[in-house]
Formats: sequence, C-alpha cells, structure tokens
Amino acid sequence: MFDAAIVGGGPAAMSAALNLKIRNKDFIILAGTDKVTGLSKAPNIENYLGINNISGQELISIYEKHLEEMGIEKKNEMAYNILNMGDYFTINAGNNFYDAKTIIIATGKARNKLLDGEEQYLGRGVGYCATCDGPLYRNKTVAIVSENEEGEEEARFLSEICSKVYYLPLYKTSFTTNGNISLLKGKPISVIGNENKVTSLSTSEEKIDIDAVFFIRNVLPVNQLLDGLELEDGSIKVDRSMATNIPGVFACGDCAGKPFQIAKAVGEGNVAALSSVKYLDKNMEV
Amino acid sequence: MFDAAIVGGGPAAMSAALNLKIRNKDFIILAGTDKVTGLSKAPNIENYLGINNISGQELISIYEKHLEEMGIEKKNEMAYNILNMGDYFTINAGNNFYDAKTIIIATGKARNKLLDGEEQYLGRGVGYCATCDGPLYRNKTVAIVSENEEGEEEARFLSEICSKVYYLPLYKTSFTTNGNISLLKGKPISVIGNENKVTSLSTSEEKIDIDAVFFIRNVLPVNQLLDGLELEDGSIKVDRSMATNIPGVFACGDCAGKPFQIAKAVGEGNVAALSSVKYLDKNMEV
Repeated sequence: MFDAAIVGGGPAAMSAALNLKIRNKDFIILAGTDKVTGLSKAPNIENYLGINNISGQELISIYEKHLEEMGIEKKNEMAYNILNMGDYFTINAGNNFYDAKTIIIATGKARNKLLDGEEQYLGRGVGYCATCDGPLYRNKTVAIVSENEEGEEEARFLSEICSKVYYLPLYKTSFTTNGNISLLKGKPISVIGNENKVTSLSTSEEKIDIDAVFFIRNVLPVNQLLDGLELEDGSIKVDRSMATNIPGVFACGDCAGKPFQIAKAVGEGNVAALSSVKYLDKNMEV
Repeated sequence: MFDAAIVGGGPAAMSAALNLKIRNKDFIILAGTDKVTGLSKAPNIENYLGINNISGQELISIYEKHLEEMGIEKKNEMAYNILNMGDYFTINAGNNFYDAKTIIIATGKARNKLLDGEEQYLGRGVGYCATCDGPLYRNKTVAIVSENEEGEEEARFLSEICSKVYYLPLYKTSFTTNGNISLLKGKPISVIGNENKVTSLSTSEEKIDIDAVFFIRNVLPVNQLLDGLELEDGSIKVDRSMATNIPGVFACGDCAGKPFQIAKAVGEGNVAALSSVKYLDKNMEV
C-alpha cells in the first residue's frame, strides 16, 4: 500500500515526486509508456525561471537528473483505470495492480474529443488496455487504433488469442504485419454497434466488421481513468489546493486546465504533493 | 501608462516578468527596498525542479541572471498604495507615481497581525510612508517603527520637518541618533488615541506621546495596498487564473496563500502574467 500514486511522468508529476520524497512518503510514479511529449518537441524555452534558453528535451534531461539525484524512479507503466475502494484506491496498470491511499493525477493535456460511439460502447467492445481485456475476445475479430508503438506489442499479443487483428497506427511506423494481423489505413471515424455491443469500425478508407476495438492512447480520457471525477471545460476540476471532487485525489499540470505551461505544472505538482501529505496526515493516522 | 505593474520582487514577481516580457508587454517591477527575504536565508533547497541542492541566495542569483539575460530590470521602489481609477490604476511609490492598466501583486507572505490600534487610526496618525505623509506633521512629534534600514532615511527626513522623532528599529542596526531623533527600545505593543487621532505609542518598555507613527515594513498589509481587495484567511483571494475580486488585478506567490513554496510562486507568477495579457487583449483594444 503506497501513500501516494502519481499517474503521469511530465513536469507536474516530477515536481510532485520531489515533494513526496522530501516528506518521506512511500509512493509510485506510473509514467506511462509514451516517450514523445509536447514538451520534448519544444525548441526553446525561456520562461521557466532559473533555466533560460533551453530545449524541451534538454529541460526534461535536467529534470530527470534531479529525480535521479533524489533517488526517485519512474515506472514506465500506464495506469488504465483507478478504482475508488473507499479509504484507498486500486490502480490497474495492465499486468500490475497497485494500491495507494492517495492519487495525484498528472496525465497531461486532457483529450476532449472522443470518437463517435467510443464512450457509448465503452466496456461493450471498446477498451483501452488490450492486455487487460483481450482475453474476453478469444477467437474473435478485434481492431487496435494506436497513437504509439505500444500498440504493436498489443497487436502481437492479441494475434495469439484472437482469430483476426486489424491494426490502425496513428503514427509513423515500419511495423510489418504477419499471420492474422492486417494494417488499416486512414483515420478512425466512428465506432458502430447494435443495442448491445460493437459491430464495426469505420475509418476514412473503409468499414470493417469487428467484435472489439482498443484505443492505445498517449493520454487516456480523464473521465475514463476514475469514475465520478468532476471535469470543467474538459479538464479535471480542482480547487486552489489541487484537490478534485473525490477526497484523496489531486490533479496538477495540463490535465488540471489552462494555461499549458511548464512553470504552472511544476508549481501545481508542488502544491498537489503537499496537499496529499496533508490529507495523509489528517486521515491516515495509525 | 504601463500595460502592467508588478508589485514585489521575489520568485512570483520574477516569473510574471519573464512572461510579460515574452508577450511584449510594457511593464514595471516595483520590487520594494527590502534586501533580506525569507528565501535568501534558506540554507538548502531541493524541491525546485531542475535546480537541486542550492541555497536560497544562490537561487535568487540564478533567477536574477535569467531576468538580466532577458533585459528585465527591477526598480527598488516600494508601492505604498494603489488607486483604482476605473480603467487603469495609479500606484503611489513614495516619490514617484506610476499608471498601469493591470496590476500583479506579488508582495510575499501577507502580514496577518497588525498592532492594536494600527488599523483603527490608519490615516489619522498611522501611516506607512513617511515621505508621503510626513509633511502633514510639521513641527509635531512622530515615531517610526521600522523593520529595515529604509526607516533610518525616513527618520532623517522627518527630523528636518518635525520637532521630535522617535525611532524604534525592529532589526539589528548601529544607527546613531542625532539632533532631535531619539532611539526607542523594546517591542511595539499598541497605538493609542482619542476619538479623532493618535495620541501615543506603547512599547514593551515605555509609553510615549506622539502625533503620528509610521510603520516601515518589508511587506505592507495587503488590505492597505488596494482598497476593496478581498482577502481569505489573511491572504489575497484568487481564482485558478490568479484573478482577484477586482478586474485587472491579479495576485501570485505567498501573498495569494499557502503553501509558501518557490515552485508554487513561480507557477502562479506564470499564470498571473498570462491572465493579465489575456485581460489586456480583451479589454484594452485600441
């Protein structure tokens, strides 16, 4: 049982981690699997006070070094779902489950726009973790729509248990299909189904019959991450202490709203961690 | 007429300045006259992401260097009072007056506890700027209670126009009195007066008859800085965009509430500046 679980691996998550470490809390960072973030592509940053004229990639390296010096390690695991167990939380990270007393969400810019039908058929053919839900579709036809290379592993895994796997990459790849995996082209348009479940996936090029579709995303839709989490303008609603509407759950950085700025994210990570510590001290007395 | 005036000179103020500069706004920083801040005394800071194991004094130097590289200069002037002129603000900084379309308050940790009688007799014998109000007390007896060396200059100035000046330093000093200036010892306890005005100052050592008392503080009580500014728990009340209850006025850093942290201050300065820019773009179209 961790004192806190940080979901995300960017500046807000790293700043939160520093503060939990200094306050001697036992925590885990589920940083996800995505290597390419918006920050890493920034050519020149001059408004993070104290570190001038630096590329996003270099700034990330400096941040990583700071964490390393403090003995903090990130896990490159994606949190798919957080269950509220009353006085603690259970995080489903694919192959692993973790328990934590508090949660700090720092998943980056929230994705506002879901595909047509995506939310409607969630849990009825739409999923975000092939490793988790794949076995439900043994000998069936599934599709994977993926924003990153992680999807390729998921496709290989599903190809072993499903009769047919369609793979639609939304990034540049030289992925070579084999066996029962076929590549799809174009952009995903909508998830189509009947009263009960998904029946097909429509892309800008074709419409294929499927039993399930998995979306492998760099950032999960925040409202899918944790049931009952209140949003505002597509971002997680927080107060000045970075508390969400769910006691013990805090959010910071881009997922907590505009402006999308490094200094803001780092400051909010700082505050979220200290609020988590305050919550632990108040509610988790031995 | 400046686009923005930043009141304060610490991390929040500096971060705000970076962002105003990048957004090509015309602004002034009234950093005050105090050289010794809480941050400058911090022996070792490890939770400002990217700059590890650093003393407060060194961190300030790195921040100052960043500003210098961006061509930003602070003015070592203290803002005593801000007047809301409707569609702009006028700042009284002792000998100088400045006009600005927006205000960013970053004055540091708010002082919650005033002296007994201080607020009651404000403007009726209690003041914060001897240069501003001293001439009202020509040939009268005044006292100065000062947290820093600036008070010594004020004492010399008042000694030229007042019949008697008492000086109570709240810091270590080798200030030598001369002429009609007398040093007071002890701690200030209360300001005493009749129905109309101040009559005496009570310290832990004695009670002296005076016509006026000036408090020279490192940080002014925020509610004295700008009339009508809404407070909450002794700090300036702000929303997530760092907007106060007065349109065009933003606050950031310690004066906007706990936790008193560098990363939080820097992040809030970032947000306050961008909110000021947004306000200018929306309300100040040519």
